[in-house]
Amino acid sequence: MTALQLGVIGLGRGFMLTLPALLRHPRIELAGAFDLRPGALARFAEEFGRPGYAEMNTLLADPTIDAVYIATPHEYHATQTIAALRAGKHVLVEKPMATTVADCAAMAAAARDSGRVLVVGPSHGFDEQVRRGAELVASGCFGSVRLVTALNFTDFMFRPRRAEELDSSRGGGVVYSQAAHQIDVVRRLVGQPVASVRAMAANWDATRPSEGAYTALLSFAGGATATLTYSGYAHYDSDELVGWVSELGQPKDPARYGEARRLLATLSAGDEQRAKLARTFGAGGTLPNAAPHHEHFGFILVSCERADLKLLPTGIEVYGDATREFIPIDPPEVPRAAVIEEFADAVLDSRPPIHDGKWGLDTMACCTALLQSSRLAADVDPRPLTIASGE
Amino acid sequence: MTALQLGVIGLGRGFMLTLPALLRHPRIELAGAFDLRPGALARFAEEFGRPGYAEMNTLLADPTIDAVYIATPHEYHATQTIAALRAGKHVLVEKPMATTVADCAAMAAAARDSGRVLVVGPSHGFDEQVRRGAELVASGCFGSVRLVTALNFTDFMFRPRRAEELDSSRGGGVVYSQAAHQIDVVRRLVGQPVASVRAMAANWDATRPSEGAYTALLSFAGGATATLTYSGYAHYDSDELVGWVSELGQPKDPARYGEARRLLATLSAGDEQRAKLARTFGAGGTLPNAAPHHEHFGFILVSCERADLKLLPTGIEVYGDATREFIPIDPPEVPRAAVIEEFADAVLDSRPPIHDGKWGLDTMACCTALLQSSRLAADVDPRPLTIASGE
Repeated sequence: MTALQLGVIGLGRGFMLTLPALLRHPRIELAGAFDLRPGALARFAEEFGRPGYAEMNTLLADPTIDAVYIATPHEYHATQTIAALRAGKHVLVEKPMATTVADCAAMAAAARDSGRVLVVGPSHGFDEQVRRGAELVASGCFGSVRLVTALNFTDFMFRPRRAEELDSSRGGGVVYSQAAHQIDVVRRLVGQPVASVRAMAANWDATRPSEGAYTALLSFAGGATATLTYSGYAHYDSDELVGWVSELGQPKDPARYGEARRLLATLSAGDEQRAKLARTFGAGGTLPNAAPHHEHFGFILVSCERADLKLLPTGIEVYGDATREFIPIDPPEVPRAAVIEEFADAVLDSRPPIHDGKWGLDTMACCTALLQSSRLAADVDPRPLTIASGE
Repeated sequence: MTALQLGVIGLGRGFMLTLPALLRHPRIELAGAFDLRPGALARFAEEFGRPGYAEMNTLLADPTIDAVYIATPHEYHATQTIAALRAGKHVLVEKPMATTVADCAAMAAAARDSGRVLVVGPSHGFDEQVRRGAELVASGCFGSVRLVTALNFTDFMFRPRRAEELDSSRGGGVVYSQAAHQIDVVRRLVGQPVASVRAMAANWDATRPSEGAYTALLSFAGGATATLTYSGYAHYDSDELVGWVSELGQPKDPARYGEARRLLATLSAGDEQRAKLARTFGAGGTLPNAAPHHEHFGFILVSCERADLKLLPTGIEVYGDATREFIPIDPPEVPRAAVIEEFADAVLDSRPPIHDGKWGLDTMACCTALLQSSRLAADVDPRPLTIASGE
C-alpha cells in the first residue's frame, strides 16, 4: 500500500482544523507545503520533515507530490486548483469551491480534462450524522422526504475577519462561507437536484459590509422543500438546540455569552487581522482539542412522510409513527475524517467521490441563485447557471 | 358601567376555550346562545340562566343582545358575521375570519357600513408575549427588525377532525386554521404590511386530504423578512423548544409520545366525528384547567439589529449585544383574556381594536397568497388581493 503524498497549499486555520484527520489517515503523508509566511513554512519543515515552498509552482513541480489540499482564501481557489490539476495533481479544495459559478465550472472541467480527482471539502455535508441521515432518507423506510428545516444562529460576523472575508465580491459574507455548508447538508439529505431558490440575503451592520444573514426556500426537483435560515449577526445561539455542542463538536458554555462581540469591540482593524492570523499554523495557532462530539451545522430537522429525523452531534433522533428512538453515533476519533477518507479513497481506490467538482459547482450555483433571488425578489433556478457555464 | 350583553353563536370547542375569559371579564355578560344541538342550548340555559335559541335570527332579533361571539365552523363565519352586523350587533369572530378574501372584504365592509365593531380572534397574535415583543420591537431600542423565524411542528392533522376541517374548499387544512395564527403573530411583531409571499403548502397524507404543512417566506414592505414553517403531520414536537409547554399553556409530558396518532388509528370515521364532538360544550367537554403559562404558537425568534428576542410562554428572552436577560411575564389569570378585553374596550370605550376587519382581511390575503404561491411556484403580493375585493 503506497501512501498518498499530499502537498498543502495554505497553512491557515482551515489546515489546522483538518490536520488531525490528515495525520491519522494511514494512507496519507504530508509531503510539502506552500504558504506566503516563511515562519509557517519553517514550522512545517521542522514538524513534518518535508519541504516548505515559497512558490506554489515549485510545489506543483515536485514529482513526489501526488495531490494537494488547497486551504487558502476563497478568491484563490480557482486559479490554484486549475494550476494543480494541470500539473497532474489530485486536488482537495476547501469550500466554497470558488467565488463564481464560472470558476467552479472551469475547475470541474479541468478535473475532467486532467483525469485527476477533485473533491470539495471539508463542509458540514460530510458530518457523520448527515451521512447517516441521508442513508435513512434514501432507504425509503420513512416514505418520501418532504421538508428539511435548517437553522443556524451564530456570531460569525463578529469574529475576527480578514478584509476579504467581509467583501462579497471576493467570496466574503455568509452566503459563500456558510450557505455552502447548509446547502451541502440539505442537498445530501434530500438527494434531489435543487430546482428553485427564493431567498433574502442582507447586510444588517454597516461596519461589517457583506451579507451576514439569509433565509432561503429551496424547491427540489423531486418535490421536497427546504427552508434554510442563517444569521451570522446572531445574539441568540442555536447551539442550544443541539445540546450546547459547538460547530466543532466541543462542549459549549452558555455563560460565555457575547464573547465574540466583546472581544471585537476592543480590536482595531489591524488588531483584527492579527487576531485572525494568530489562529493559523506556525503563528501560535494550536491543534483543536479532541472533540467529544461530531461537528454540526445547527438545527436540522428532516420531515419524511412517516418520521421526522433530528440530526444531532451525538446521533439521530428518529421520531416515528409510534415511537421515538435515538440512534447514537460513535464519537469521532478525529474531526473531519470523512472528507480525508473520501479524497483518499477516490485517489487510491478510484472510488467516485460524492463531493466532486460537479457537486461543488451545483452548490455554488445554489449560493449564486440565493444572492440573485434576493436581489431580484423572485425565484432563481440554479441549474441553468451551471449550463451557461458549459457544464 | 353597563355590561356588554353577549350572545354566543356556536357552542363548540372554541367557545369552551374562550369561556373562562368571558366569565372573568367584569363588563361582559353571557346573554344567549345559538347552536344546532338542543342539548348544548339546554345546558347553556341551565348554567347561565339565559336563553338558548334554535335559530340564529331569533338571537339576532333579541334587542337585549349587544354583541355576538361567532365560534362556528369556518365556512359559516362570513354569512353569520354579516347577518349579525346588519342586525346591529358588534361581532367577535373566531379566526380564520372566513374562507375567502372576498368574504373577509364583505365582512369588513359590513362592519364599516353598520358602524359596529368587528374583531377577529382569538388567535395567537393576542398572546401576551407577542404583545410585549411587538412593543419591544416598536420601541426601536434594538434597531430595526430584520428577520422573524417561526416554527411549529404539531400533530394537528392526526387529531379528531370534522369532515370540513380536512377540506380546503371549506376552509380546512392548516393554512386557514394554523397559518392564520402564525401570520397574525409575525405581522404584529414586525408591524409592517406583507408585500410578498413565497410558499410551499402540501398534502403529505392521502387519508387526510388537505394541506397539512407549509413553509413560507414573507417579505414586509419595510424590509423585514419572516420565515414561517408549520407541519401538522409532525412526529417531532416543537413544544420542546419552549420548555415543554403546550399551545394552551399547560405543562406537556414528552413521554406521551405519539398519542394522537395512536388514538386516531383506533377510530372509524364516525368515531372520529364523535370524538371531536365530545370536546364541545354540553356534550361532555370540560373547561380547560387553569393554565400556568401563556398560550403560544411554537418557536418564535425575532432578530433585530442589536438583539434577538425569543418568545416563550413564560416571558421573553432578550439576547442583547452584551448580555442576555429574561423578561418574565406574569402568568395569565385566565387564557385568552386579551381578545375579550380588546373586544370589550372597542365596544364599550370606542378604543380602536388592532385585530379589526381590515386586520383579519389582510391576514386572510396572506393565507390565500400562501396557497397561490405554492400553486404558482412564484411570489404573490397579498395586497392586490384585498384591493380586488374592494378594500
